[in-house]
Amino acid sequence: MYDLIIIGGGPAGITAGIYAAREKLNTLLITKNFGGQINRKAVSIENYPGFPKISGLDLIKKFENHLRKFPIEIVFGTVTKVKRKKGTFIILSENKKQFYSKALIIASGVDPRPLEVPGEKEFIGKGVSYCVTCDGPLFKDKNVAVIGGGNAGIEAAIALSKWVKKVYVLEFLPTIQADKVNIDRFQKLKKRGEIITNVEVKEIKGTKFVNSLIYKDRKAKETKTLSVEGIFIEIGSIPATQFVKGLVEFNEKDEIKINPMTGETSTRGLFAAGDADDVPYKQIVSAAGEGAKAALSAIRYLENLKS
Amino acid sequence: MYDLIIIGGGPAGITAGIYAAREKLNTLLITKNFGGQINRKAVSIENYPGFPKISGLDLIKKFENHLRKFPIEIVFGTVTKVKRKKGTFIILSENKKQFYSKALIIASGVDPRPLEVPGEKEFIGKGVSYCVTCDGPLFKDKNVAVIGGGNAGIEAAIALSKWVKKVYVLEFLPTIQADKVNIDRFQKLKKRGEIITNVEVKEIKGTKFVNSLIYKDRKAKETKTLSVEGIFIEIGSIPATQFVKGLVEFNEKDEIKINPMTGETSTRGLFAAGDADDVPYKQIVSAAGEGAKAALSAIRYLENLKS
Repeated sequence: MYDLIIIGGGPAGITAGIYAAREKLNTLLITKNFGGQINRKAVSIENYPGFPKISGLDLIKKFENHLRKFPIEIVFGTVTKVKRKKGTFIILSENKKQFYSKALIIASGVDPRPLEVPGEKEFIGKGVSYCVTCDGPLFKDKNVAVIGGGNAGIEAAIALSKWVKKVYVLEFLPTIQADKVNIDRFQKLKKRGEIITNVEVKEIKGTKFVNSLIYKDRKAKETKTLSVEGIFIEIGSIPATQFVKGLVEFNEKDEIKINPMTGETSTRGLFAAGDADDVPYKQIVSAAGEGAKAALSAIRYLENLKS
Repeated sequence: MYDLIIIGGGPAGITAGIYAAREKLNTLLITKNFGGQINRKAVSIENYPGFPKISGLDLIKKFENHLRKFPIEIVFGTVTKVKRKKGTFIILSENKKQFYSKALIIASGVDPRPLEVPGEKEFIGKGVSYCVTCDGPLFKDKNVAVIGGGNAGIEAAIALSKWVKKVYVLEFLPTIQADKVNIDRFQKLKKRGEIITNVEVKEIKGTKFVNSLIYKDRKAKETKTLSVEGIFIEIGSIPATQFVKGLVEFNEKDEIKINPMTGETSTRGLFAAGDADDVPYKQIVSAAGEGAKAALSAIRYLENLKS
């Protein structure tokens, strides 16, 4: 039985861990990996105070090293379900392991939003990716497509241009939605970068690996084929909260509703922080700040249990 | 006329400045100094994620350097009053200078709480201090007293022991309120550190400089004199918000009431962040997170003004 279990290893979960472990709570942190979404960031981070310009991987490493200065148990894994029985939280992970705690902080962040087209799931790891920094180097001298013309998509395309032969950016709407500064930087790729608008992706095709993408040109009303060996999906994200569905109140986006003063949720002893909660701004530093608040609230909750 | 004025140069104000200046808002930051309360911290900081152990002064320097990477105007000074006329904020500073802006972020933090006894004001800078890290070295080989036996007081006493001959900690209550780890560290000073409880400070005396402190022993019900040349006051803090009194809603502690989702206050275009607001937890990382949210809200507010 742990005092506190923290689910998630991004800025919110790591900060909660630092605060809890410094207070010598018997704490377990369960996460798929360290860094969460920061792993997927294709550009340097310039807005976490104290580091004027730092790569996502370097910042995560600093966070992780900081956390490991304190006594905390860390388990790498995916949580599939959380239950609560007589005030005890029961956390089930994918390999049927169970963990028990008196208090729980959910800092599980978000997952990439899937396209939901035929071939997508089938070709994950075989040409379909949600993470440019993880998989970009595998596509050296190949043609690739980025799905999504927002800032994330354009930044992904610019990052990919270091490796690939040509990168297409496919946008559903008639115009792309990225900031001017990003579009300007993309234009510098010249013939190595091409934006196609009015694209409705229909299917991802391949044999062993991806070899093409079928889409409807929404303006010309024609079905077209694009020959690419890599497809990077950058169409936003969804809260990674399904494992607590029913246990705690969500908003309409499946974000966990919190009292933003304290990180408390509708369930006693259960706190949330970071991108999995319903605070509208999703920033590294604000997620970390929420992690601190959730941990301090959990500490207070555990003290009250004793008395 | 500025787009945005930020009052305060601690973690909240600096983070707001980084966010605003990156977005190329025409921004002015007014502050007495950089760092705010961090300047007064007598021990290393171990809970700002990314820096496992760093002195307050070093962390402030990193924050300031980060801020100065972006185009932002900085004025050192004390704000005495803020008014609002036809949607424009008018900021008055101590030397009768005036500044104008469309949006305003208050991140002015807190000031040390004064003792409010005769002699206190008179001897500020002549033996009375609210800042160990600033003034401690001036009391080499002298006897000094710290007023307040909470963590701040004990940490101040430990820090002072590097320089002074002997440090007394004076506590109003029958027992001191600091954490065990701090008390243990204090005990190691042996005869160079002494805790006196049940102390009600009555007067600070001196000629040109402080030479003694008069207090009532609340248990023995006697008036006593302590010969000290330095007096460090560590009895908490009060929100530095008087300059906006009447312009925006306060709570009973004179903290600015905010919507903690966004940093919005009861006054349109006026946002608050950090220790000056009514969020219960006062942490460097959560203040910084609030600064980011207030700046993003100010950016959104200014965009809506245009349309």
